[in-house]
Amino acid sequence: MLEQIDLSKKISQQEFKKNIEPLANQLASLQRECRSRNIPVMIIFEGFSTSGKGTLINQLIEPLDPRGFSVYAINSESEEEKRRPFLWRFWTKTPENGRIAIFDRSWYRRVLVDRFEQTTPESQISDAYQEIVNFEQQLTDGGTVIIKFFLVITKKEQKKRMEKLLESKQTAWRVTDSDKKRQKHFKEYRVMAEEMLQKTDTAFAPWTIVEAMDKEYASIKIMSEVVSRLEKQITRKKENPDEASQKTNGNSDRNELKSSALSQADLSRSCSKEEYQERLKKLQSRLTLLHSALYRKKIPVILVFEGWDASGKGGAIRRLTQALDPRGYQVNPTSSPNDIEKAHHYLWRFWRNMPKTGHIAIFDRSWYGRVMVERIEGFCSTDEWKRAYREINDMEAHLAHSGSIILKFWMQIDKEEQERRFHERMENPQKQWKITDEDWRNRSKWDQYELAVDEMLIRTSTTYAPWIIVEGNNKYYARIKVLETVIRAMEDRLKSD
Amino acid sequence: MLEQIDLSKKISQQEFKKNIEPLANQLASLQRECRSRNIPVMIIFEGFSTSGKGTLINQLIEPLDPRGFSVYAINSESEEEKRRPFLWRFWTKTPENGRIAIFDRSWYRRVLVDRFEQTTPESQISDAYQEIVNFEQQLTDGGTVIIKFFLVITKKEQKKRMEKLLESKQTAWRVTDSDKKRQKHFKEYRVMAEEMLQKTDTAFAPWTIVEAMDKEYASIKIMSEVVSRLEKQITRKKENPDEASQKTNGNSDRNELKSSALSQADLSRSCSKEEYQERLKKLQSRLTLLHSALYRKKIPVILVFEGWDASGKGGAIRRLTQALDPRGYQVNPTSSPNDIEKAHHYLWRFWRNMPKTGHIAIFDRSWYGRVMVERIEGFCSTDEWKRAYREINDMEAHLAHSGSIILKFWMQIDKEEQERRFHERMENPQKQWKITDEDWRNRSKWDQYELAVDEMLIRTSTTYAPWIIVEGNNKYYARIKVLETVIRAMEDRLKSD
Repeated sequence: MLEQIDLSKKISQQEFKKNIEPLANQLASLQRECRSRNIPVMIIFEGFSTSGKGTLINQLIEPLDPRGFSVYAINSESEEEKRRPFLWRFWTKTPENGRIAIFDRSWYRRVLVDRFEQTTPESQISDAYQEIVNFEQQLTDGGTVIIKFFLVITKKEQKKRMEKLLESKQTAWRVTDSDKKRQKHFKEYRVMAEEMLQKTDTAFAPWTIVEAMDKEYASIKIMSEVVSRLEKQITRKKENPDEASQKTNGNSDRNELKSSALSQADLSRSCSKEEYQERLKKLQSRLTLLHSALYRKKIPVILVFEGWDASGKGGAIRRLTQALDPRGYQVNPTSSPNDIEKAHHYLWRFWRNMPKTGHIAIFDRSWYGRVMVERIEGFCSTDEWKRAYREINDMEAHLAHSGSIILKFWMQIDKEEQERRFHERMENPQKQWKITDEDWRNRSKWDQYELAVDEMLIRTSTTYAPWIIVEGNNKYYARIKVLETVIRAMEDRLKSD
Repeated sequence: MLEQIDLSKKISQQEFKKNIEPLANQLASLQRECRSRNIPVMIIFEGFSTSGKGTLINQLIEPLDPRGFSVYAINSESEEEKRRPFLWRFWTKTPENGRIAIFDRSWYRRVLVDRFEQTTPESQISDAYQEIVNFEQQLTDGGTVIIKFFLVITKKEQKKRMEKLLESKQTAWRVTDSDKKRQKHFKEYRVMAEEMLQKTDTAFAPWTIVEAMDKEYASIKIMSEVVSRLEKQITRKKENPDEASQKTNGNSDRNELKSSALSQADLSRSCSKEEYQERLKKLQSRLTLLHSALYRKKIPVILVFEGWDASGKGGAIRRLTQALDPRGYQVNPTSSPNDIEKAHHYLWRFWRNMPKTGHIAIFDRSWYGRVMVERIEGFCSTDEWKRAYREINDMEAHLAHSGSIILKFWMQIDKEEQERRFHERMENPQKQWKITDEDWRNRSKWDQYELAVDEMLIRTSTTYAPWIIVEGNNKYYARIKVLETVIRAMEDRLKSD
């Protein structure tokens, strides 16, 4: 969830000022309404050191009635706390109905800071994830709203902020040795954070990633998310006063505050025809060798291609298959499900085509249709596509766990490039079959798709099955990137085996 | 779930004949209705060898339209299947909407037969449980009804059945070497089965334990359960055609078919006053020594006492505490929750009293109120108490996992003994305070409570936090049994540490 995030998001001072007051007023009135409707709320702040948790918590509580909330700073366990199960100190801090509990760090210490410090043994991590998910499920089933923020900055920004703090005696104490250690080993720490986010991002207690390079942006995003989640829970309680639990996940509805992965793709990247031809040849021969090594080592490979219409999926796939032994791979084109497929679980038709050991399965479009076309066209319910992120992550975890290499390519082009290619297809008799009215219809929903794609990339890019955004305005560049990525993943696996 | 089951359940030939035909007719018509409503159904049979899976499956399918179901016998993986993730062969067999798939053994092979044979490495077991639970959740979320039977017989009965099969050439081939091995190591296999049942008994796909000593009884129970589950799903779909998933677990509503733990308690067990006094003294001195050993080793202990009114909880607790150092234990009496407690999650007030390392917490009544009094008096919703079994198991697993010894005593007396004790209390001015109108009111709901207690004992007796049924008509016997059980558990832990 972290690797694909565009951290350059910003907001102007002016826009901040315009937005902050209405949000603060809304928040104050929502707090009163939660109180009268007996809704307990837990808001937790996790994230990298110096990402601004303290400041942002202060901004959040500023408009709130102080009699109605508590803030807990969660440090290392005290001697007393060490003598109880680790969830004990959080269970005892769960808020009463109508109250808000805010956590500066939380039970996630166990699987993040304390794991990094080796206070939590590695052997306990997997149980701890399960216990945390159960804990949150029990509370949300009982009617608590749980809002989880993870604040992200870059390593460089962290270094800058730490240096500034260390300059003055007044602030230097705030940078602990642990902070320094986490700065030094930023990458390792981020891998742990990534795993934690994946394992604990549930429909009932989803994570919201906050781009915290710009504090005004972060502040507006946090407050909007809290407002949106509380509003949803209040509406739900109005409609159905007896049903305590919240079934669907939130996320602020304001588009400009959504996290984005696509926005950072640099579509100007390109590669000349000569360079392309030369590299293509080399890469393809390398791939041929690797394919037979994988076959001997019985490693299955799953390659997923998704992307805009006319973004070059077919071309990229062809450059791969040209180098593969046809007995060892299969390309699975995915179109609308037929009647038999419709009569099964949506994942069923893909399970049938999962590769056996040593084989490569290439999916030209895939199960991700669930969270794109099916979501946008209303072919499945909101509950269904929201649930699908986790279902898909679970499926891919199972496949990875049983030995598969999984890579997922998003072929990215911009709207102008798509239009150019559509026209080219229409004008070229050989390519006319490739373009239909539906393509134009889909194009008219570009913005809706873009939001869905961003959410998909962020929620389903995992360490075991990463998304690769392929800048596709230049076809040569795109094809080379795909080939190189596949080859690198294969080499890495063969090395580690 | 297995240890507490009364296996002596039987049904007469006459009763069998009376019941089987109406059930068969219902089943046939429900199959047609599932077909027309597009409901996919999966029925799986697991259990001990020779427990009669084959025969019972035949009886179940007899009334069904053969065009609407498939039976799969799940043996060791073929070479082809070994080359895919283990769930692949089950995903590809998931039934189309409106069809029934019946499994003679199933994906549970992975964590039971194949685990026992060491085909599944131990390191994979914990992931496999999670993958199985995810698999079933995804299917039920998508609208599939999953009905899971586990057939139970005793070791002795299994031996008898195997010997009979081995006598004739016609049947001897049915007893494989694996069967013989599982007979020989019956206890180890049962422990694995018990763990599997605990880890995979969910609200969306609950296990039904089938007492299979008597095949007629088993057959009626299986068919009734299938009828009941299908009826519920059809009703749900009628009320809410869009909502695919089934939120609550089933279990046939016919009381005489419910599994029972209480029915086997032999309430005639007793102990003379002289023997009692002599043993009490010895056991108490032993307990004193153990308490200080546990204190030094920092092991926390949780003792839960539940039972009928006037079943002797207080007396048994006193005989324990007499031997304990008051600085090292706390008795937590549980009455109706106060306003602050009511404003929290129902587990919150118990979490506050969980013992720290080296301490003993005794709960005189406990969180089990959720599935007894709150269930029966309607203080919580059906969804809530059904969900509570798993919530409680999760909590106790967390406590056990962080080092606690957990024992739960159910003090069992019969209705006559209770009446005798109530009268005794009313007549004795010293004891009058102990008896209230509410006790008499509760007594009038004896049968309802008995059903709830049986379900509770079966669903929440786990290897890490077992229920002990204490035959309590004779107080001396009961107190000695409690002391002995506590001492044995402590000794076992100290030995293994």
